[in-house]
Amino acid sequence: VAAELLVVGAGLIGTSLGMALGGRDVLLADPDAGALEVAVGRGAGRVWDRAQPFAHCVVATPPATVAGVVAELALAFPAATFSHVCSVQRSVQADLAERGIDLSRVCGSHPMAGKEQSGPGAASARLFAGRPWVLCPSPQTGPAALEATRRVAELCGAEAVELTAEEHDAAVALVSHLPQVAASAVGAVLSQSTEQGTRLAGPGLQDTTRIAASDPAMWIEVLRQNAQAVAPLVRALSTELGVAADALDRLAAQPDDTAALRAVDGLLRRGNAGRRLVPRKRGEHDRDFVLVAVAVPDRPGQLAGVLVSAAEAGVNVEDVRVEHLPGRPTGVIELLVHPSAQAEARRALAAAGWDVVGA
Amino acid sequence: VAAELLVVGAGLIGTSLGMALGGRDVLLADPDAGALEVAVGRGAGRVWDRAQPFAHCVVATPPATVAGVVAELALAFPAATFSHVCSVQRSVQADLAERGIDLSRVCGSHPMAGKEQSGPGAASARLFAGRPWVLCPSPQTGPAALEATRRVAELCGAEAVELTAEEHDAAVALVSHLPQVAASAVGAVLSQSTEQGTRLAGPGLQDTTRIAASDPAMWIEVLRQNAQAVAPLVRALSTELGVAADALDRLAAQPDDTAALRAVDGLLRRGNAGRRLVPRKRGEHDRDFVLVAVAVPDRPGQLAGVLVSAAEAGVNVEDVRVEHLPGRPTGVIELLVHPSAQAEARRALAAAGWDVVGA
Repeated sequence: VAAELLVVGAGLIGTSLGMALGGRDVLLADPDAGALEVAVGRGAGRVWDRAQPFAHCVVATPPATVAGVVAELALAFPAATFSHVCSVQRSVQADLAERGIDLSRVCGSHPMAGKEQSGPGAASARLFAGRPWVLCPSPQTGPAALEATRRVAELCGAEAVELTAEEHDAAVALVSHLPQVAASAVGAVLSQSTEQGTRLAGPGLQDTTRIAASDPAMWIEVLRQNAQAVAPLVRALSTELGVAADALDRLAAQPDDTAALRAVDGLLRRGNAGRRLVPRKRGEHDRDFVLVAVAVPDRPGQLAGVLVSAAEAGVNVEDVRVEHLPGRPTGVIELLVHPSAQAEARRALAAAGWDVVGA
Repeated sequence: VAAELLVVGAGLIGTSLGMALGGRDVLLADPDAGALEVAVGRGAGRVWDRAQPFAHCVVATPPATVAGVVAELALAFPAATFSHVCSVQRSVQADLAERGIDLSRVCGSHPMAGKEQSGPGAASARLFAGRPWVLCPSPQTGPAALEATRRVAELCGAEAVELTAEEHDAAVALVSHLPQVAASAVGAVLSQSTEQGTRLAGPGLQDTTRIAASDPAMWIEVLRQNAQAVAPLVRALSTELGVAADALDRLAAQPDDTAALRAVDGLLRRGNAGRRLVPRKRGEHDRDFVLVAVAVPDRPGQLAGVLVSAAEAGVNVEDVRVEHLPGRPTGVIELLVHPSAQAEARRALAAAGWDVVGA
């Protein structure tokens, strides 16, 4: 009898996927016996004997290996459908087409989750909960493969979003690959400095460079595979900055150069406009929130105390930022709340004895 | 009898400064009677009658007006010393020199605090607590002016750091002005898209573009005044990205182009190196912390509950990140802790019933 699902690749994504489908009949395969053992131990499924048939197979292996795995299994199991979970779609679609596989049986997909860690030990049944999971059928993908892929996404608690491979690759180039290259480039300029030279850094530099710490080995593969979509965006960014550098050079010589001022002003204003397009969650944006800041001693439990006071007052804290102060046992906690809750949050926190900044 | 301090300018900085010196004899001046009234009402000092002498004057007015204010008051009050609080130093130093003021009586300074709000209503006695406060004496600045300026910084609870104007302007160009231009430029590229085009955005884009929301009117003045120091850094960033765009173009045509791969790999690795130079607090860096992630329902009080559990276990949470999940009532809370506390934090949170990710 055919199992419901075969997962090939017991890494972070494959193991999490098996765990999320807990209770269903999931088969697992991985050439790394150690990884496979960890995945089975975590409840991701049972070891595949390479003979039992399966209705659908998710190939969760490195992108360069996906087409080979699908080609082999599609031949041996002619009734099965296939999907993969690659972060870039067009290159994998091209690899599959070159293999002469029946493309009606294959659907691409990309769960938007799980970047900072790797391996089955970091897997979680909740990894995909509420995340977008992009389905990328090719023009040849048949309804059975598409629906099986959608069902996996939904069983994992993800939100299925259907895009073409081209649309997907363009979208991730803009919202993921461009900011990675930008953060890395700011980091590269900073790397010419020293710890002494950056000691005045505040939260602006912190945030702007956070993802510059990403793993180069993973990112070079992503950027290589999506080079066609990323290159023009990086070029546009370079051009924006070249124009800004020209304008700043002119302002250094002549602080009232009107055209140069207009160029810098335009950059800042278009920056505002672009930022307004970045969703915070569920279509909400920065403009939908306001800050309430509280100064606290930098001791364990202060953050918890502030949040308990907010919770007791019925204030929903959408986000929180902790700003530590160098060289001093004190800090500022910034709570992000809906504008309708701001006055009550300030009142309740002050009444609870907290030092509300600007109160 | 001479008052200890005159503060000219009842904005965010001037009012906060007066409030931080609460109890001392502080005089306040501002051409805006409404701002002055708010500042006095908040305990920042008493209204100056324009006759009473003062030992030291902090000019907390817009940078372009500082030299004029100092020139007028230095003539009328020949025993006083002066400082200012401008975010760029060389241009103000040059303005002061042009006025024929006795420069031994003047010391520049820059408290690194208070960017996101403005006006006396947003002021706080704790605004400067634990922040760096850069003292920028010119070669002519005398010991009395320098020590009076240092005393103001220390009375405000700030950490005084002495730099030349050139060193200061180079440092803020690198840690503050460069990331602002970079974030604005990423925002400018994004602004070509739509809310639909950015709906797959995650925390990486959020962080990289946060400061792109900054006020253009304020930033154009800062960038204009520090253009000489910022221009070469923006040029270097543009060049990094131009080289990256070239490499990505070559990879789009030939995915195995070794030189292009080496260029992208080098960018990512130098980005890692630069990021390692960004301090988190007190000389601590990312490498000194590890993450513990907890999946929670997106309801009021969950964040507080997780932090209370951590506090009860004696775990000091250094920072916290809230990741909301689009379209679903659930989220992930990431706690940043010292590596020595990670195992205990995971154990204690799981024991308290929280869904520790990857546990």
